[in-house]
Amino acid sequence: MKKKINAVQFGLGPIGQLCAKTILQKHSERINLVGAVDIDPSKVGKELGELLGIDKTGIEVESDIKNILKKKKVDLVFHTTTSFMSDVRKQLIDLIKLKLNIVSSTEELFFPRYRNREIAEEIDNLAKKFKVRVLGTGVNPGFVMDVLPSVLTQVCTSVKRIRVERVVNASKRRLPLQLKIGAGLKVSEFKEKKATGRFGHIGLVESLQFLAYVLNIQLDEIKEELDPIVTYKNLRTDYLTIQKGRVAGIHHRAIGFKDGNEVIELDLKMFIGDHRDYDAVYIDGEPPIKMKILNGVFGDTATVGSLINCGYLIFNAKPGLLTMADIGLPHGFFSQK
Amino acid sequence: MKKKINAVQFGLGPIGQLCAKTILQKHSERINLVGAVDIDPSKVGKELGELLGIDKTGIEVESDIKNILKKKKVDLVFHTTTSFMSDVRKQLIDLIKLKLNIVSSTEELFFPRYRNREIAEEIDNLAKKFKVRVLGTGVNPGFVMDVLPSVLTQVCTSVKRIRVERVVNASKRRLPLQLKIGAGLKVSEFKEKKATGRFGHIGLVESLQFLAYVLNIQLDEIKEELDPIVTYKNLRTDYLTIQKGRVAGIHHRAIGFKDGNEVIELDLKMFIGDHRDYDAVYIDGEPPIKMKILNGVFGDTATVGSLINCGYLIFNAKPGLLTMADIGLPHGFFSQK
Repeated sequence: MKKKINAVQFGLGPIGQLCAKTILQKHSERINLVGAVDIDPSKVGKELGELLGIDKTGIEVESDIKNILKKKKVDLVFHTTTSFMSDVRKQLIDLIKLKLNIVSSTEELFFPRYRNREIAEEIDNLAKKFKVRVLGTGVNPGFVMDVLPSVLTQVCTSVKRIRVERVVNASKRRLPLQLKIGAGLKVSEFKEKKATGRFGHIGLVESLQFLAYVLNIQLDEIKEELDPIVTYKNLRTDYLTIQKGRVAGIHHRAIGFKDGNEVIELDLKMFIGDHRDYDAVYIDGEPPIKMKILNGVFGDTATVGSLINCGYLIFNAKPGLLTMADIGLPHGFFSQK
Repeated sequence: MKKKINAVQFGLGPIGQLCAKTILQKHSERINLVGAVDIDPSKVGKELGELLGIDKTGIEVESDIKNILKKKKVDLVFHTTTSFMSDVRKQLIDLIKLKLNIVSSTEELFFPRYRNREIAEEIDNLAKKFKVRVLGTGVNPGFVMDVLPSVLTQVCTSVKRIRVERVVNASKRRLPLQLKIGAGLKVSEFKEKKATGRFGHIGLVESLQFLAYVLNIQLDEIKEELDPIVTYKNLRTDYLTIQKGRVAGIHHRAIGFKDGNEVIELDLKMFIGDHRDYDAVYIDGEPPIKMKILNGVFGDTATVGSLINCGYLIFNAKPGLLTMADIGLPHGFFSQK
């Protein structure tokens, strides 16, 4: 395989911490973690191992990546800060100007060329100028509702319609995710949040646009629907108590139309309850395909898996703002750890 | 998308005929079929449409592709002749020297660098010299037991073991396939056929070697097991009557070992009976993944789907002998036909 990569973890929220820990514990043969960055004053200056609850790492959390670059050569940044392009624009531009390749969990970065066209073009141009690669990936967007259904069509002589379902039981997930899906809200509060345009699952439309792009579908229209899933019994998680009649989570759909027909439907349910997780892809084509992942793909681990594996694979691609269709066959790596 | 490709169908057995027909009926927007070749005297000189049972195509079956090249520019050959590298070596070399890109259903060509190293190197060198791409693909090998499990590991932070199962009910498949799996043989005859080394599913070890290559596993040993599945009741298909005690099909396994552990297991059952088809991938890793394709992926159509889709995608790659890890994200194309 290729040479070892020097990487920095940028952002030490729950996903960033899991990413750093996983690199150190499982991927040290391929990836050498040489630094970690966060803006939170309670984290800056701390020994990374202490923050992660593992052995000493010799890495101290920095507030500014430039302090790391003075001492170390860095090839790649694992960027895990926020979901929206407008919020990460400056972070990405600064990293690109430092000639750093970036793999990011920012959901809107997964396929930004339509809904964030201007920022996407700016980043693409800069990345080409500074000869670095920038990729947004994860599990959703990044795998379940976009990459996986794309690959399943490899064997189809025709593809007429694709439907993807993801059902996530958020009961065992971390608190920020439970809050992200509105768990515990009144229905009226849910509607207010929805009106901000920054609520619900981020990246669903980007997954749909990626699928349409890969399969060469010129969509006429995209509809998005976001509804609360209301619980009819009292629910409890480690963090929350949810009374009946309140919101248990979201039902979020994105539908792509072509010539008046629904040709892509992405249907996501994330809620607290006692249901089982699963992912399913249904392809109406020749041959028809009905795929199911039993018990689903566990989100946090899988997001980190995508980041680490694709972080390694982006060096297959030419510089620029990349998509998951640009890095070759996506895959992971054997590891007994 | 890219420009339209001019293609020739090379080999007009059942898969070649289905491939030609599918291109003409469903993919004419992207692929322009300009010729068809077979050595069978009963096919040569025939109008292709007549042979395929469709409308006139304006294509007459030729015995020599050079007759087509005199009149038409050809970018790509759909090569569907036989399963073994030693049998197709000369065909491929001749086509490469004519500067033709090739996508082929030859099972051993899917990943020939170990079991057919010499021929593979010869073809790779020639393909580079004549600046053409050569790829072996299909459904199995080509998708179910190699490409699909590879892609499923994209989200895994560790991969400890992979098991793939494919169960095919051959009752509704074409006669050559029923004969290929030994249906109707006595167990003693099955053993004699097995001893020739040219019996069973071709390509199983190649799928395993591809998976090991992609996931970066240095296997210590590969074991292959081929056993008859014997029927305990009388069976009938459209073509065959199989008495109880005779062979209904094959159970073919390939197992890859690393440090004494089974790390990859491919388990294929193809037999006549009343069971349901399915494909399943089990990844022992983080997160664990249990994927099932209900009712399986129908082989003939899917082989042709892979050939046509990947035939279009190979132009993403540099010249040489390619694998499915070289052509970008594998996928199909939207088509209402």
